[in-house]
Amino acid sequence: MILGVGLIGGSVGKALRARGLADRIVGVGRDPARLDEACRLGAIDEASGDLASAVADADLAVICTPVSRIADDCLTIARWIPSHALITDVGSTKLAIADAVDADPVARSKFCGAHPIAGSEHQGVAHARADLFDGRSCVITPTSSTLETHRELATQFWGSLGCRVLVMSPQDHDRALALTSHLPHAVASALASTVPCALHPLAAGAFRDGTRVAASGAELWTEIFLANRDATLVAISAFSDRLDQFRRALVDGDAEQIADWWRAGQSSREQFTFEAPAPAHESPPSYGVPK
Amino acid sequence: MILGVGLIGGSVGKALRARGLADRIVGVGRDPARLDEACRLGAIDEASGDLASAVADADLAVICTPVSRIADDCLTIARWIPSHALITDVGSTKLAIADAVDADPVARSKFCGAHPIAGSEHQGVAHARADLFDGRSCVITPTSSTLETHRELATQFWGSLGCRVLVMSPQDHDRALALTSHLPHAVASALASTVPCALHPLAAGAFRDGTRVAASGAELWTEIFLANRDATLVAISAFSDRLDQFRRALVDGDAEQIADWWRAGQSSREQFTFEAPAPAHESPPSYGVPK
Repeated sequence: MILGVGLIGGSVGKALRARGLADRIVGVGRDPARLDEACRLGAIDEASGDLASAVADADLAVICTPVSRIADDCLTIARWIPSHALITDVGSTKLAIADAVDADPVARSKFCGAHPIAGSEHQGVAHARADLFDGRSCVITPTSSTLETHRELATQFWGSLGCRVLVMSPQDHDRALALTSHLPHAVASALASTVPCALHPLAAGAFRDGTRVAASGAELWTEIFLANRDATLVAISAFSDRLDQFRRALVDGDAEQIADWWRAGQSSREQFTFEAPAPAHESPPSYGVPK
Repeated sequence: MILGVGLIGGSVGKALRARGLADRIVGVGRDPARLDEACRLGAIDEASGDLASAVADADLAVICTPVSRIADDCLTIARWIPSHALITDVGSTKLAIADAVDADPVARSKFCGAHPIAGSEHQGVAHARADLFDGRSCVITPTSSTLETHRELATQFWGSLGCRVLVMSPQDHDRALALTSHLPHAVASALASTVPCALHPLAAGAFRDGTRVAASGAELWTEIFLANRDATLVAISAFSDRLDQFRRALVDGDAEQIADWWRAGQSSREQFTFEAPAPAHESPPSYGVPK
């Protein structure tokens, strides 16, 4: 069962189908038109507006709703889903969700949080892709309450979609993602709004690429920033300090300092590789319903 | 004649050849190995280490050396090139060059500065492309000393390579490019060096795109920043103010302010279009040698 069939939820469905990993994929959501679209596009096998019945015999529930709703959705699903089933999610921040789920004895016995690090500035199931997770990192964030079986199920599940699965604490995840994702989004948005539209004809690749994700949804990103406020503020502070080093070197007209400053970023960027091969999965697990 | 056959100079040569606009293209540079490579890759027809003889019967000289050397190169070329010829350049900053050229009566009578807004984080003629300028803006920056004939020649020349030609003063150019190019490069570099390499596996598209140009050359960018120091400092200040607005809204946990802040960048980004059709050139001018 996939709750919330947008870009990510739709891609989970398409990836499951493309890899033949599920017998039946039920998509659940509040908007019938969007669920119809998800069916038509082959992201889910069937649609339902009734969460209780949709999860009653599910082996797996993937929560793809906005971060502010994931914990509540998990608690609701946990009441109805079989006890062997895995509940996982795709939330971009993990600590607040983990804390809320861990406070609920039923939910914490079925949940293992996850964050597949893949996405796009586009929203909606129309942009969903079966290969969205190929070779991408997926961080699973078990806590001391997470059952070993469910941690293992989450590792298998996200691995079976093509992800390289990493394990981190929710807190470490949020601190890291503040730097690798939330900061770059804030910077892209600040850059986009600093350059007047009248000057767009004078902008090229640096502006285009540096601002691409600024086109992402405002509600989505407001929620993510608020859900990871402290770590994002730390990341912004580190970035601002770094930019200020450049500003001071430029005020001084110090060519050597500017070049050294530049080379640190150059070296970091040259070590970055985005495309990683998907791990081989010789015998992918099945998430069929019914068992 | 093309002085400096790297990414941009090589692309000028390839574009001229692909469009059949020149009878003979001589590349001049200090490194014979690089000139050989440019010949082999079809960016120039022949190579020369002797600038004086290379420009003696040229109709056109395109200076593609680093910004710190362009003015001196222009003064040198102006001594030897025929008086009808056009000297133009590709420098990313224009005011310092314009001031230096305008102070020389011979050079200013042959020069019209230009900046084709196209490039890549890669350097060298191996990355040169005949279509690098297709549909890209090229700012020409005539001054009160620029001859009307040479302003017209520069418009024709850059237009014939596929550029949309815009006219700006050197000062306006430098202020605008500080925002549209120099700021995005500084931001990309700061972002790349703020995120520890150990966290690269947790980075995805936002970091990849937001830092792409940080891989550009350190010497090139140190020169550009220094040549456009004041305007770049103003741009950094505007960007920092904008990021600080976000920081304060986040400290306050003010969802509405964060969303409004985000929407300003989103709206700007959605209005940005990178790809523009190249203008039609029914009768491209010829820059053949000899006339």
